[in-house]
Amino acid sequence: MTTYNFAAGPAVMPKPVIDQIQAELPSFQGSGMSIMEISHRSALFDQVISDAEADLRELMGIPANYRVLFFQGGGTLQFTAAPLNLATKHHHIGLLDSGHWASRAADEARRVGTKVDILGTAADNHFTALPTLDQPVDQALDYVHLTTNNTIEGTAYTMLPQTGHVPLVADMSSNFLGQQYQVTDFGMIFAGAQKNLGPAGLTIVIVRDDLIGQAQNLPSMLDYQLFADKRSMFNTPPVFAIYAAGLVLKWLKAQGGLAAMEQRNRDKAALLYDFLDQSKLFTSHVKPADRSLMNMPFVTGKPALDAQVIAGATDRGLLNLKGHRLVGGMRASLYNAMPKAGVQALVDYLADFEATHAKEELTDVSN
Amino acid sequence: MTTYNFAAGPAVMPKPVIDQIQAELPSFQGSGMSIMEISHRSALFDQVISDAEADLRELMGIPANYRVLFFQGGGTLQFTAAPLNLATKHHHIGLLDSGHWASRAADEARRVGTKVDILGTAADNHFTALPTLDQPVDQALDYVHLTTNNTIEGTAYTMLPQTGHVPLVADMSSNFLGQQYQVTDFGMIFAGAQKNLGPAGLTIVIVRDDLIGQAQNLPSMLDYQLFADKRSMFNTPPVFAIYAAGLVLKWLKAQGGLAAMEQRNRDKAALLYDFLDQSKLFTSHVKPADRSLMNMPFVTGKPALDAQVIAGATDRGLLNLKGHRLVGGMRASLYNAMPKAGVQALVDYLADFEATHAKEELTDVSN
Repeated sequence: MTTYNFAAGPAVMPKPVIDQIQAELPSFQGSGMSIMEISHRSALFDQVISDAEADLRELMGIPANYRVLFFQGGGTLQFTAAPLNLATKHHHIGLLDSGHWASRAADEARRVGTKVDILGTAADNHFTALPTLDQPVDQALDYVHLTTNNTIEGTAYTMLPQTGHVPLVADMSSNFLGQQYQVTDFGMIFAGAQKNLGPAGLTIVIVRDDLIGQAQNLPSMLDYQLFADKRSMFNTPPVFAIYAAGLVLKWLKAQGGLAAMEQRNRDKAALLYDFLDQSKLFTSHVKPADRSLMNMPFVTGKPALDAQVIAGATDRGLLNLKGHRLVGGMRASLYNAMPKAGVQALVDYLADFEATHAKEELTDVSN
Repeated sequence: MTTYNFAAGPAVMPKPVIDQIQAELPSFQGSGMSIMEISHRSALFDQVISDAEADLRELMGIPANYRVLFFQGGGTLQFTAAPLNLATKHHHIGLLDSGHWASRAADEARRVGTKVDILGTAADNHFTALPTLDQPVDQALDYVHLTTNNTIEGTAYTMLPQTGHVPLVADMSSNFLGQQYQVTDFGMIFAGAQKNLGPAGLTIVIVRDDLIGQAQNLPSMLDYQLFADKRSMFNTPPVFAIYAAGLVLKWLKAQGGLAAMEQRNRDKAALLYDFLDQSKLFTSHVKPADRSLMNMPFVTGKPALDAQVIAGATDRGLLNLKGHRLVGGMRASLYNAMPKAGVQALVDYLADFEATHAKEELTDVSN
């Protein structure tokens, strides 16, 4: 049975990348050692990490005055590192409250003594739309934190809020490389790898070099300037995860880069949203203009029926459609590596389910 | 050509583990997804992490009142986390200065405002022997930090210093699972995986439960109590690295456990040390009683000759023998996954090199 993995992360990776990892596993580049066994100080790994950075720079158009850093610890560690490194002048940041992960970022910033102003919230809309700025941004903030794509709530920014001279810091974890942004619109971008880039255990930080180097005496594993100076190899980096991410970046280039990938993602997303919008059974509650290209929560409105939808999907090889525990229902994540055929299979299944369900309802009523 | 990888870390892994990873890569447990693509909230991964913890507990004899935590960020992140979590009463720790990594630990502890007393140093011996306690340990310390095995200097503790009621915190990164210790002799043990446990990107923390939960308002990614409460899944853990480490733990059990493994490691180490001690060309400067079972630095005394030794070894498939940049010369790391045949091949090569070199010297003299 062909299976399609709709998980929100860790998530589907490109099949050719999995195949290449498998083929190269016993002896990386003829070295007699697997990629897991080679030194991070070796010429072999130096090529891996240099290629990964160069390919990422090419794909995203990252200018020379931005540093690309390879961290561990997921987006969550950056919730701590970003204020420690960048909120050094005012110890005060702004944040757009677009959902769970934005709220987590605010919490971690406060834990390290940073004052956090909520500049706008989507709580009134139950996070089914994006927050907008309540008023012009106070220019005495170190930065404004933004979650470009809200994995749980299914919203994403296409237009960015205007923050004047205050830099935007973006948690791009769940639409990194899935949608194009202009890097120069941000002071910093970070992203956990386990959505569109590769296996869990790697986090990318892209940061404008004039914003770092101001913090004193940071723990080394949170120090952007140190990581920049040491090319992310102050200690042993996650070698395997960087290697796998590097292969995904080469695959992305072979697919035509981010413009082509975004177009494909728009086509895939349209296929599912168009179905949901005409469906009498399934609903997306998210405001159309704010909808994510990556994560689509939807519901029938009845938890027991949602459970039937999910069970039936699993039987057909349509995996991991259960919604996040905070919102329930279903969620389909359509990352870069999800082929259009997977989305079509999902839509076909949902249409079948709806038709069968409508007949059953009719029978129930006529009985 | 058979190759043997003597790297200090990332390092050799057991061949059967590499084979199993390769075989299972396209579809983990028949799921249709690779291990990199499965959710950390899935039943599949729950089994992986539960097995890894249970197997580690069995191998090391970890009592129920110790928690086993899975972190990212290497030993270096624990240099920060350990004082933040455990040095909450006196903000004051002791440390035995046994070499580079102990010194790094002291530096990171000081960065987070912890006072660090050096209780003994091996600096006078150029770190070729272990430091001992200069005097009885002040009982108003939160803990004493110890590096059980010094990867660069080639020393390891067999006997532990007596610290009274003050808990020992051990950085066991480079002899974790390679040598037996009594867990109850420590308040906490931590270890980066990339020596004896698996790929880089995973760090194990084993901590006595009464020592944690005292710290307030820590960054989540550094909070032992939170990681204990969330079974190391507050955010996405490094799924692949935990899976690979789990396979290594099963392999270790199949090898007879840690007692058998330590005996094998003692035999391998003796093979190399016995050769070095009778050699007229090669020297280990490390005090015999303090020698590591894992990492053996040695020299000819002439850097140009060391370079010849290393180049010749590489030609024979004896890889990564170059010493650490801080000490030069050669270093052979004989972790669990290094077969005795590899050590024998190294000793045979060194003996050949010595014999050839002796003849050349003789020729040079007679010319």
